[in-house]
Amino acid sequence: MSAVAEQTMDNVSDQIREMGKRAKAAYQDLGQAETAAKNKALLTAAARLRDGRDVIKAANEKDMAFGRDKGLSEAMLDRLLLDDARIDAMAAGLEAIAELKDPIGDVMAEWERPNGLKIARVRVPLGVIGIIYESRPNVTADAGALCLKSGNAAILRGGSESIHSSGAIVDCLRAGLKEAGINEDAIQMIPTRDRAAVGALLSLSNYVDVVVPRGGRGLIERVQREARMPVFSHLDGICHVYLDKAADAQKALDIAVNAKMRRTGICGAMETLLVDQAVAADLLPPVMDALIEQGCEIRGDEVVQGLDGRVIPAVEDDWGTEYLEPILSIKTVGGVDDAIDHINRYGSHHTDSIVTEDDPTAEIFLARVDSAIVIRNASTQFADGGEFGMGAEIGISTGRMHARGPVGTEQLTSFKYVVRGTGQTRP
Amino acid sequence: MSAVAEQTMDNVSDQIREMGKRAKAAYQDLGQAETAAKNKALLTAAARLRDGRDVIKAANEKDMAFGRDKGLSEAMLDRLLLDDARIDAMAAGLEAIAELKDPIGDVMAEWERPNGLKIARVRVPLGVIGIIYESRPNVTADAGALCLKSGNAAILRGGSESIHSSGAIVDCLRAGLKEAGINEDAIQMIPTRDRAAVGALLSLSNYVDVVVPRGGRGLIERVQREARMPVFSHLDGICHVYLDKAADAQKALDIAVNAKMRRTGICGAMETLLVDQAVAADLLPPVMDALIEQGCEIRGDEVVQGLDGRVIPAVEDDWGTEYLEPILSIKTVGGVDDAIDHINRYGSHHTDSIVTEDDPTAEIFLARVDSAIVIRNASTQFADGGEFGMGAEIGISTGRMHARGPVGTEQLTSFKYVVRGTGQTRP
Repeated sequence: MSAVAEQTMDNVSDQIREMGKRAKAAYQDLGQAETAAKNKALLTAAARLRDGRDVIKAANEKDMAFGRDKGLSEAMLDRLLLDDARIDAMAAGLEAIAELKDPIGDVMAEWERPNGLKIARVRVPLGVIGIIYESRPNVTADAGALCLKSGNAAILRGGSESIHSSGAIVDCLRAGLKEAGINEDAIQMIPTRDRAAVGALLSLSNYVDVVVPRGGRGLIERVQREARMPVFSHLDGICHVYLDKAADAQKALDIAVNAKMRRTGICGAMETLLVDQAVAADLLPPVMDALIEQGCEIRGDEVVQGLDGRVIPAVEDDWGTEYLEPILSIKTVGGVDDAIDHINRYGSHHTDSIVTEDDPTAEIFLARVDSAIVIRNASTQFADGGEFGMGAEIGISTGRMHARGPVGTEQLTSFKYVVRGTGQTRP
Repeated sequence: MSAVAEQTMDNVSDQIREMGKRAKAAYQDLGQAETAAKNKALLTAAARLRDGRDVIKAANEKDMAFGRDKGLSEAMLDRLLLDDARIDAMAAGLEAIAELKDPIGDVMAEWERPNGLKIARVRVPLGVIGIIYESRPNVTADAGALCLKSGNAAILRGGSESIHSSGAIVDCLRAGLKEAGINEDAIQMIPTRDRAAVGALLSLSNYVDVVVPRGGRGLIERVQREARMPVFSHLDGICHVYLDKAADAQKALDIAVNAKMRRTGICGAMETLLVDQAVAADLLPPVMDALIEQGCEIRGDEVVQGLDGRVIPAVEDDWGTEYLEPILSIKTVGGVDDAIDHINRYGSHHTDSIVTEDDPTAEIFLARVDSAIVIRNASTQFADGGEFGMGAEIGISTGRMHARGPVGTEQLTSFKYVVRGTGQTRP
């Protein structure tokens, strides 16, 4: 694949269109493939990853050299690196996806009409999925495998820094498809660093049914702006925890600290803590002590500032900011209605949690907060397909259409109505 | 409303944006409304339609006068006309929608994780729905009521010829909302004939979550091209019936004639008949006799022409044409694989039917024809939300995303994940 990876494209948009056509044709094959064939492809690909680790590491070394020349930060270089442990993890990921239930062919609902027509709603693949992502090469394996399992052809566009690594991984996936007798073009990688390829892919609405961008805000915004097909994405994860006046103090402490500090850089990390003003003086001091001790900066409103001299005044912009860092804004509110209004106004419809022992208050919050995931008495960091038991996810969507929340194999499907009759005509 | 209907808009796009804002605010109210309140609104609106029939007929007379001045055809004028029977039918439609199950709050799936988290996927409304339609004023009642029942705010844009009639109907719907204590702005009508209003609505992606166009090809194409939000639509209904070599001759005759001639102008009408060449000489003559006797023109390939001197030669364009008239193209094919290839290439992914007594052949066809509705041994004219038992439909979608096939109240919903914990934090 590295030969392909270094090729230049004379006419990028023509070549991307050709990839689209081949993907659509391959989908006709993969979309009809038996579960056993798809699993064989996945397991073969996993074996190829393990057996071909030297090839993959050599390809990765080219990317690392390119990254060092380009002056990537140590953190970025670490994201790019593939070592034995990470190759094994990718292979294990493919094996786990082989274990998942095949969603295709599932009868979602079934009923009979008075005239004897039997109607079934049956899951089918979406078609062709474009995935555009940044540096981590393991996304190549995860995304390709999720599409394969759900019967969708994939066109992958990884970060330009990881082009050789991704190419070597795609070779393994395609070898698996071939071994299973499935059209290899069901997984294709765009073999150029040319940025025009992204624009060409996003305009390919005849061949690409949905695009999933994974990466920073710049990438997501570009995709949302330019795509001529539906997009599964989330721009921000401005997640809230609301400490109600009926909150249990220990749960409030545990959940607030975990939601912020377990990992600060993920989309499910809490960015704003809301607290009922009636209990702020009781609940907040231990929470703030623990957070500050762990290196978190606190920005608060006047009430919060009054509780702790280390609190920095929050400004309006803080309520709409996704820090992705050990920084937290804290606001006191008049109660659950206020909290809901704040979340629906400033949040990003991703994941929001209430800590309360009061059932009616919890139900109001769960019903009226307009987010993909609403939680009672647990950390926002559970916002993850794996934690939801979906096996794996290709991303999280904050859109309301089709897929909402973690996007796993089921969310990568559509359906059709299958009607079985005995000669019925419509009167 | 007629005063409003005649107002001119100084700045259309500002005013449409204001309507969008009001719709979004009203959705917060309607989306949380109890089933009983929504049904009260619908039943009150039905009563207002019946009791206010004189007002409605007077408004309709203004539209009819406008239509006659504009030189509308008799058929168009008939579509526009509201008489007592049609007003009663609209009211009965609202009452039927009140009877439907409320989809909102439905628990679609529910499971518990090993850590004790209880996860439920719960139906919620989509948000704000824009509906753009042509002359028939009864769409105002149907579309408004379906949105209301499914908790979605609606912005209606009817045909310019029906603006007074639609305004009078919207008055009844809003009176119902008011009586039920729900924010009236949950149903709004664009009160101008200015065509710029459509463009303004289609650009309002911050406030309008989905657009449903209903009308001719010109309207659908414009909406698909300009909309900055998802669209539920079908451009064409190029529906096929395939007569397999194992078809029952009587079923073949009944289904082919019904699929073409019951109503030729609907999207579920058959436009192309495919037949296995091995049985063409047996099956086609009675089918063609019956069709020609009912006034249908037949365009066929050479084999078909050889069977009947009245057959006109079909050209390539015929295979991709939605006639919506008593015209049928007929093609002989080499078997079910050929038929599937033809349908996936020339069809519009709407509704396609196979007539066969052979189970394996039927299953191949049902699995591999890539259409929203695939049928065995029944007429394509069953492609309808009412016939599917969905109560009512706002349209039929040939898109693969979110809603596919008939779009009823369930298809006008999204979902959220509701997670109930007992203090869980993520390790």
